[in-house]
Amino acid sequence: MPAAFSFALIATDGDARLGEFRSAHGVVQTPAFMPVGTQGSVKAMRQRDLEETGAQIILGNTYHLYLRPGDQLIARRGGLHRFIGWPHPILTDSGGYQVFSLAGRRKIDEQGVEFRSHLDGSLHRLSPESAVDIQARLGSDIAMVLDECLAYPASRDETAHSMERSVRWAARCRVQFAAIRDGGRADVGATNPGQAQFGIVQGGVFQDLRDQSADAARAIGFEGYAIGGLSVGEPIDLMYAVVSDTARVLPADQPRYLMGAGTPDDLVECVARGIDMFDCVLPTRNARNGQLFTSEGRINIKNARHAEDDGPLDPACDCYTCRTHSRAYLRHLYLAGEMTAGTLNTLHNLTFYLDTMRRIREAISLRTFDKFRQAFRRSASRLSLDS
Amino acid sequence: MPAAFSFALIATDGDARLGEFRSAHGVVQTPAFMPVGTQGSVKAMRQRDLEETGAQIILGNTYHLYLRPGDQLIARRGGLHRFIGWPHPILTDSGGYQVFSLAGRRKIDEQGVEFRSHLDGSLHRLSPESAVDIQARLGSDIAMVLDECLAYPASRDETAHSMERSVRWAARCRVQFAAIRDGGRADVGATNPGQAQFGIVQGGVFQDLRDQSADAARAIGFEGYAIGGLSVGEPIDLMYAVVSDTARVLPADQPRYLMGAGTPDDLVECVARGIDMFDCVLPTRNARNGQLFTSEGRINIKNARHAEDDGPLDPACDCYTCRTHSRAYLRHLYLAGEMTAGTLNTLHNLTFYLDTMRRIREAISLRTFDKFRQAFRRSASRLSLDS
Repeated sequence: MPAAFSFALIATDGDARLGEFRSAHGVVQTPAFMPVGTQGSVKAMRQRDLEETGAQIILGNTYHLYLRPGDQLIARRGGLHRFIGWPHPILTDSGGYQVFSLAGRRKIDEQGVEFRSHLDGSLHRLSPESAVDIQARLGSDIAMVLDECLAYPASRDETAHSMERSVRWAARCRVQFAAIRDGGRADVGATNPGQAQFGIVQGGVFQDLRDQSADAARAIGFEGYAIGGLSVGEPIDLMYAVVSDTARVLPADQPRYLMGAGTPDDLVECVARGIDMFDCVLPTRNARNGQLFTSEGRINIKNARHAEDDGPLDPACDCYTCRTHSRAYLRHLYLAGEMTAGTLNTLHNLTFYLDTMRRIREAISLRTFDKFRQAFRRSASRLSLDS
Repeated sequence: MPAAFSFALIATDGDARLGEFRSAHGVVQTPAFMPVGTQGSVKAMRQRDLEETGAQIILGNTYHLYLRPGDQLIARRGGLHRFIGWPHPILTDSGGYQVFSLAGRRKIDEQGVEFRSHLDGSLHRLSPESAVDIQARLGSDIAMVLDECLAYPASRDETAHSMERSVRWAARCRVQFAAIRDGGRADVGATNPGQAQFGIVQGGVFQDLRDQSADAARAIGFEGYAIGGLSVGEPIDLMYAVVSDTARVLPADQPRYLMGAGTPDDLVECVARGIDMFDCVLPTRNARNGQLFTSEGRINIKNARHAEDDGPLDPACDCYTCRTHSRAYLRHLYLAGEMTAGTLNTLHNLTFYLDTMRRIREAISLRTFDKFRQAFRRSASRLSLDS
């Protein structure tokens, strides 16, 4: 039986935290960034490419995997790790976010949510219990509770009601999770006995609701806590304020995960506010659109000024793309519509993100995080070199 | 100054030949297969992936590179090798095949061919001399003469007239090539002083025309000779017969290149008929369409029978795809439209092709090629396991 999930706080520097968690599939150093592997594949990356970027954990999307190829099929293959050939840690979301953003004709009630597949229009139901069951079959190392995702802006009343429903759902998720973990639900077909479960703090931009939600989540008790419902269109300063105030009311000895964020700046600023884990499609999606992150600012590889540039994307980067190819060649591949543009650009952007996390961890361990953060901000001020 | 092109015949087994050629960018063992890098990239492959498959030489398409990003831009980057980050040998075609198959509104006369770009409709001219100049700027290790490409079937008269024009064009190509090589045309901006030039034997399926074409090419004198105008729809037995009879009238001490072929069977059968070099889009294009070559026959990864197959694509294959992933996962990636399906499948198909060439070379060196060929035919009889 795999070791249970555990988290250790190694050092702090201000509110920034250096830590690591142990899971059934290995150790993850925090602060950590999790590349998004929507359909069992981080787009344009092979698993060994991911390892090369320094990724220690990836995220899988329950909604997508449930619909195709199906969590039952994945369980018969031995779980998601074996199915996709990624032996390292995996976190799965609950499926809720995609149901609320991608699926058709949603009907939500206290029991759960009914929706139509974006693939074929077929009718499905997702409940707190079934979201737990599906993730148990996928066998991720960290499963997330099902919560209701509100669009921004939402009124205080809407946000309060939604948060309260999410609390009730979280409690049901924990009951189902405990039943599976304690062996009472062999019928579910869980594939990872070492799976952990994280609660999610909702409450929009209303700090008293955030506090209530955090209190309720702590009362239920999870292996870690996420902050959901941010990075959905609110002003950046408001997001940072909510992150600060919410992180403060979460347990110091457990990991804190800011869902769906963000830009490189967001990573640094939210580590400074006590966040340990991040996920975002930005580095991978932008890469496929020719938008590249570098130590000298953002680059749009389509820009004509790169047409005859023999230099690398980022002279400070040691990835295969930067070691091997010029901006001129990368621009040509992008304009010619070559698939290799996507693979080379994604390798670079993920390396930039994972390398930023490595530098963050190093700075915290040396207690120079504040200096690092200021220097990073100065380079960030050169963002969008190409308009 | 790079060493000039040279070819050495190392061993023969029946009509099959083991050899190697030296070029400004290194040695290539023959029989060799050249993956097709249409626009300066073998589709879905990074250069290190290509090296991993065992590719020693790749093909670049002059038509595509001339139109985008332009041969002048590539020359300013130091040539095609430096531009694309591939330090090993490259062969370029003349551009003629794409002009005749892809470009719009062609007008052909003795001087050359006028055509419209398939990208933007702009008007261009390609002549024997300019095809040589463009390839000199690209700096490939082997350049091809411009020839006229006929559709199959063509009458004897059409074929004869076309072949005769191709002979006149070949002579002009050689004059231009020699002028550049001997330093008389510095204005062209050649980037590879070690470039070699191959002639092309045309004549369709009329062996007396093939013989005339081969005689004319030998009289002009090239570093190697290609057989063009095959694999265009003629019956396979007719193609093999033309290959046998044409190889026989080509110089024994120079390389022979069968353009645009073929299936794994074609490679083995045409090596048996004295061919040293091949190129074909089949392994890369089929891979992107989910059609995979294995030691047990062809596979269509979309087929439902692979949905729960935990085995590798090909148990006899040592490529990353086969070492890491199951057919079930590869089917999922393909059906989900993941780019990674293209990269993993292409890596496998090219490995299969390059490994077949390695086994062919080994068999010739051991003088067991006929046994190898018979065993290969038996596995070929299991082709198309999935309909």
